[in-house]
Amino acid sequence: MEFKSKIKTIEWVDTYSKMVDQTVIPYEYKFVNITSGDEMFNAIRNMIVRGAPAIGIAGAHGVILYAQELEKQNLSRSEFVNKLIEKAEYMKTSRPTAVNLMWACQKQIEVIKNSNADIKGIIEELKQNGIKLENEDIEINKKIGDYGAEVVPEGATILTHCNAGALATVGYGTALGVVRSAYAKDNTIQVFADETRPRQQGSRITTFELAMDGIPVTLITDGMCSYFMKKGMIDMVVVGADRIAANGDTANKIGTYTVAIAAKYHNIPFYVAAPLSTIDISIKSGDEIPIEERSHEEVTHINGKPVCPLKGVNVINPGFDVTPHELITGIITEKGILRPDYNKSIREIFV
Amino acid sequence: MEFKSKIKTIEWVDTYSKMVDQTVIPYEYKFVNITSGDEMFNAIRNMIVRGAPAIGIAGAHGVILYAQELEKQNLSRSEFVNKLIEKAEYMKTSRPTAVNLMWACQKQIEVIKNSNADIKGIIEELKQNGIKLENEDIEINKKIGDYGAEVVPEGATILTHCNAGALATVGYGTALGVVRSAYAKDNTIQVFADETRPRQQGSRITTFELAMDGIPVTLITDGMCSYFMKKGMIDMVVVGADRIAANGDTANKIGTYTVAIAAKYHNIPFYVAAPLSTIDISIKSGDEIPIEERSHEEVTHINGKPVCPLKGVNVINPGFDVTPHELITGIITEKGILRPDYNKSIREIFV
Repeated sequence: MEFKSKIKTIEWVDTYSKMVDQTVIPYEYKFVNITSGDEMFNAIRNMIVRGAPAIGIAGAHGVILYAQELEKQNLSRSEFVNKLIEKAEYMKTSRPTAVNLMWACQKQIEVIKNSNADIKGIIEELKQNGIKLENEDIEINKKIGDYGAEVVPEGATILTHCNAGALATVGYGTALGVVRSAYAKDNTIQVFADETRPRQQGSRITTFELAMDGIPVTLITDGMCSYFMKKGMIDMVVVGADRIAANGDTANKIGTYTVAIAAKYHNIPFYVAAPLSTIDISIKSGDEIPIEERSHEEVTHINGKPVCPLKGVNVINPGFDVTPHELITGIITEKGILRPDYNKSIREIFV
Repeated sequence: MEFKSKIKTIEWVDTYSKMVDQTVIPYEYKFVNITSGDEMFNAIRNMIVRGAPAIGIAGAHGVILYAQELEKQNLSRSEFVNKLIEKAEYMKTSRPTAVNLMWACQKQIEVIKNSNADIKGIIEELKQNGIKLENEDIEINKKIGDYGAEVVPEGATILTHCNAGALATVGYGTALGVVRSAYAKDNTIQVFADETRPRQQGSRITTFELAMDGIPVTLITDGMCSYFMKKGMIDMVVVGADRIAANGDTANKIGTYTVAIAAKYHNIPFYVAAPLSTIDISIKSGDEIPIEERSHEEVTHINGKPVCPLKGVNVINPGFDVTPHELITGIITEKGILRPDYNKSIREIFV
């Protein structure tokens, strides 16, 4: 039985990108239409759209939006191509950590470079490719979900951190894709969701989308995971990824590494669920993954109100951390579950 | 050189208890006067006063307040004594985990039982004992601070969780007492403060009191600790305690156990700082410590506003967790630093 999610996070509609505005969840569930390239750049940077696979699609859409704008400038074909590639390269810089963004923008650059069509034709090819990437994302997520479901024990409680769900992808999820596929087979499973401070993707988004799809979810704060692990209440951990190095080291939302250490201490399996596009075989280890330092206000304010004194207090706000490969039980991809030694299993999957 | 803190958290004034209202920090720094026993019961339960040693003193003050009320009822001396002991036993139940509350109320019960005075005389003795406990708390904290300062490396960055500071005690702190004493010797040390969701004692209170006393403090969210440990930015962890079992297992604010596991993984010393009154030699291990389950609103709301969907989401909110003795490098007390084997070192200190 296939699980039907109610959520479609991002989709290309004729001349614009339509996406769920994730900054207002859970207070509102509304869509915004992004109609220019710069608007898309800011939507990614300000996390109106977030989640590594979803921002990949957003980047691809952004390139189409820039193409539509350049079309109006009466450029020669070669001027158009050069300027558009420049814009696509710029779009890659809207966020630094998730590699899917670079991957999807690069896919569009290849379309541009390989096209023999005129300007209108290139734009058409970019749109077709954008829609193809969308559809592939859902298909890939379902494969990840189905492979992952095979390692979910009967009646399991699955802990997740941040949101690697339908709302982090086009519409099914990676970590929560595993949950959806597992739930379709066995409706006695349930999820524990870490709040995931500072941006609260767990309390705001993961709980929201699981409640929307009717999957049982319990919200806990980030410090609580070990307490429930010790009590035997957590059977496995599944998280998403923003970038995976060739040795399996995995960058994901800040706090993931702490959960992975706690899982190891309690001998609980810790899985990463991610499409192959998240794996960056060009880097040897997690040490090479750039970690985004985000605004201090994410830590010092919640819902616009300060939660600490605003004078005399320093803040550091790394957006991601790297979980070393030795803490990862398996990496669930659309081509199956990769196991240690990851240098070997990752190399083999890319052959 | 002795460190002078600007903070006096709780003090007995003639006929009432004067305390810092900790529910409005960091937005306001104001005092409330607690004038009846039931008011004190609720002040403890609702965390107007919090921190194991501070609620011990608050409990002792509460017994005086009940005594003043019973005095007005024209009871016989024996009726007065029986009813007051009943009230003192009730006061012990205002919060279940921190043993200092039971310890301080019991100290007052002993005053009542051992007194030969009339009702007025008993009340006077209770007041004297309350003030004695206050003064002792500060003296004990300073001894804890001085012993702890000996194991703080030069220029250390000390991570702490929750607030075991001046605002958790009468006015110097246990974990932050160690920080104050260390800072008086070496002003290149600094503190990293975990936010400590759900009640945010770290972001609201620890940062506030350290900023007030001019000690450098950096606020981080709970999931970040491992990230900074891996980067070599944390030299030691010092936390307070709500109850310590005879084998060294330590109940402290939820999230402490996660930090302890992360410290172990990175080979970073993890110390507990607490007065001997926090040690409950009547229980063999942490398994016997009751863990308070607190209101779900602490998790689902911040500053009165929801942070998650309010339908379709379960919540569990344990107020404390137990860090097993094998993760604890030392327990810093007013009689020196206890080391493993704790069964032995704790037994010896109580001889």
